Amino acid sequence: MIAEPRYDEGEDEEDIVLNERFLAQVREAVEAGDKVRLDALLDDLHAADVADLIEQVGSGERAALLELMGGLDGDILSELDEGLREEVIDQLEPEELAEAVRDLESDDVVDLVEDLEGEQAEAVLEALDSADRAVVEQSLAFPEDSAGRLMQREVVMAPEHWSVGDAIDFLREAEDLPDQFYHVIVVDPRLRPVGYVTLGSILSAPRETPLKALFEDSFRTVEATRPQADVAYLFNQYHLISMPVVDDDDRLIGVITIDDAMIVLDEEHEEDMMLMAGVGDSSLSDTILETARQRFGWLFVNLLTAILASAVIALFSDVVDQIVALAIAMPIVASMGGNAGTQSLTVAVRAMATRDLTGANAWRVVMRETAVGFLNGLLYGVILGAVGWLWFDSAMLGVVLSVAMWLNLVVAGLAGIAIPLGLEKVGIDPALASGTLVTTVTDVVGFFCFLSLASWLLL
Amino acid sequence: MIAEPRYDEGEDEEDIVLNERFLAQVREAVEAGDKVRLDALLDDLHAADVADLIEQVGSGERAALLELMGGLDGDILSELDEGLREEVIDQLEPEELAEAVRDLESDDVVDLVEDLEGEQAEAVLEALDSADRAVVEQSLAFPEDSAGRLMQREVVMAPEHWSVGDAIDFLREAEDLPDQFYHVIVVDPRLRPVGYVTLGSILSAPRETPLKALFEDSFRTVEATRPQADVAYLFNQYHLISMPVVDDDDRLIGVITIDDAMIVLDEEHEEDMMLMAGVGDSSLSDTILETARQRFGWLFVNLLTAILASAVIALFSDVVDQIVALAIAMPIVASMGGNAGTQSLTVAVRAMATRDLTGANAWRVVMRETAVGFLNGLLYGVILGAVGWLWFDSAMLGVVLSVAMWLNLVVAGLAGIAIPLGLEKVGIDPALASGTLVTTVTDVVGFFCFLSLASWLLL
Repeated sequence: MIAEPRYDEGEDEEDIVLNERFLAQVREAVEAGDKVRLDALLDDLHAADVADLIEQVGSGERAALLELMGGLDGDILSELDEGLREEVIDQLEPEELAEAVRDLESDDVVDLVEDLEGEQAEAVLEALDSADRAVVEQSLAFPEDSAGRLMQREVVMAPEHWSVGDAIDFLREAEDLPDQFYHVIVVDPRLRPVGYVTLGSILSAPRETPLKALFEDSFRTVEATRPQADVAYLFNQYHLISMPVVDDDDRLIGVITIDDAMIVLDEEHEEDMMLMAGVGDSSLSDTILETARQRFGWLFVNLLTAILASAVIALFSDVVDQIVALAIAMPIVASMGGNAGTQSLTVAVRAMATRDLTGANAWRVVMRETAVGFLNGLLYGVILGAVGWLWFDSAMLGVVLSVAMWLNLVVAGLAGIAIPLGLEKVGIDPALASGTLVTTVTDVVGFFCFLSLASWLLL
Repeated sequence: MIAEPRYDEGEDEEDIVLNERFLAQVREAVEAGDKVRLDALLDDLHAADVADLIEQVGSGERAALLELMGGLDGDILSELDEGLREEVIDQLEPEELAEAVRDLESDDVVDLVEDLEGEQAEAVLEALDSADRAVVEQSLAFPEDSAGRLMQREVVMAPEHWSVGDAIDFLREAEDLPDQFYHVIVVDPRLRPVGYVTLGSILSAPRETPLKALFEDSFRTVEATRPQADVAYLFNQYHLISMPVVDDDDRLIGVITIDDAMIVLDEEHEEDMMLMAGVGDSSLSDTILETARQRFGWLFVNLLTAILASAVIALFSDVVDQIVALAIAMPIVASMGGNAGTQSLTVAVRAMATRDLTGANAWRVVMRETAVGFLNGLLYGVILGAVGWLWFDSAMLGVVLSVAMWLNLVVAGLAGIAIPLGLEKVGIDPALASGTLVTTVTDVVGFFCFLSLASWLLL
């Protein structure tokens, strides 16, 4: 047996820089209008942390902070939450914006521009020189959330006949290599990628080795029009580090690196989680009004479905009127169904995101979830039946609770898996509507089973 | 304004290999016992896809498939879902297991061994030669889910005084370089990392350039005992590609690369999502019995909280007994509160995972969520008040619904943010218990407000 020592969680977080003490110091500097002190505080900070700082202060403080900072690096702008970029850009002078943007790589400019309104987007594009602008506009011509928007245009490529020595000589003399690259992509005379070689193997192989002899097994390309979610899946599934992007004619037009794929993976997760909870596209830096509006819509859908469930109760108002115990016990059946349905649903949404649940095994998984509902329904039927019998001193009410619980957990298991599968089949993101749909089904079925059994057996 | 063409989603998925047609072919080959055909089908498949295939077939088919495959590559074993590894390893002969394991890098062996039971873990360790075994056992001495377990021991390091030329000569002559590496880590005489240089900049700089002149700004190290979740956060926050791992004395003992960090990030997301839904550590390949057992516990907690909410209703059984409309309408108030609470909760859990919600801005976010609840509560109070008035033809019942809804949405906003913050404060994963806790609060408050107002105003 292997010993498993435990670590002390969170004890040693000195590299989590935005702690309360630091924020208090920033606030003091901003309130005192002390630019020297503010610059000293921010000087060592990574752009991602400065962006987080701007996000974390309240909106009143934010204006004062930005004013005292006076201009922003492009890096900070591109790290900033999308919802805040417009607000921050509005506060920059045109020449400050131009200076910030000129430092950025083309893929970062694309990421920045695509979320801006017309006028601001124009301002950013105009700040670029014409060559950079053309590159950015080409990327923007690809569909939103496609591989083409994610790729960087700067690629390091080599012809098929090159040796390691040729590649090294080329790299030594090249100006303007990309900031980060991990492979040399080998292309045929029509610029179609045929393989890639890691920099590590170029460095460790003899000069005369042909690049072809060092091709990595992991090589695969992606079309520029493929959704970014697929790109993130491919990186994660095949442990890729970079992936060449090709156009309709299979010609190399860019490359996506794993750091960008990791960001997409993170965003896709966030989207699934937020969609399931009905929060939509939101962030902590949104204002109260914006946030209330974003959540209003989902709550409205929930209101309609809650009214539907209540209408089911209303159908049985006679029997509820005669036996008050029914009003007391019925939320238990609905609540258990809702939770069991959410369990199945969450497993399904996750498995669909990781492509573990596909048309090929859907039927088996539906059967499995229904069987799990059957088993747990049986157990909880017995437990709740006993509770109901003792609580309300009525064996028959216990039987009604028991059977209703059982039926509802079977339906919950089935609905939790069948609804997301059905939504995907008709082209709707299964995370989007499943939450309400599943709990609506379990509420309606729960109330209906319980109250109809009650009116049959208890009256 | 920038045009935004749309892509055709899912049209072009030829690189998603495990489609229904492919699985049907595999099934046919397995049923016919046709090893030649099976090998031909699996030959071109990436290890990750073979592992997915083993996961996706039913457990009966799985045994037949593994039998016909006859032995497994180590890569497939390490791609396999943790829940299935034991089952699959049990089916391997000792020499097959030994052969599979010998191909793996040390970090993959660690990942494999740490989830196995004592006997199987021993069998894997014994299959290694003694040097590899010592390396694996050293890694296993680090806490579970720590950076030390995640790192690979094979590092490429260089002394501080080296030039680019020295590094190139060293790499050219080195045997046994790691499969994947992206930086040369520069260490001082006591083996403490002082900076790193990308392979790209080594390749493109003149031979006489000192390595020190090429240090990357992104350089940072991590202690071997830090939790993997922190490691994933640091990679994502600072766009790292690799991070040197150090021991208590700051000496270099390994390196973590982004592909491993990406897997951890993905697992952390899965964990949060599953914990929030009360599913626990599960996968699609678990048996029905295992799955039912995993979900039983959470449903039991939910049963207790549902009974608690029902007990609140029981307190007011007099008033419910007299006015049946209350039994019909009360689930609406509870359901709206539960959904609004889940919205706040989801935003909070996500923001805590990305470190956007910290002690520094917690108070502001609590106020914001409560204010959002206040606003939406006001709106839905008016809407539901009107609905209740019209439906039950009682203005006073409308008022009761209206006020109860308002109060419950304020409490939902507050509970949705305060509960996860409180759990984190006392060292509990906020995703774990929040779901039940928040909906319990909204159910109890919802029923209590509604029914106590009703007994005051309607009787």
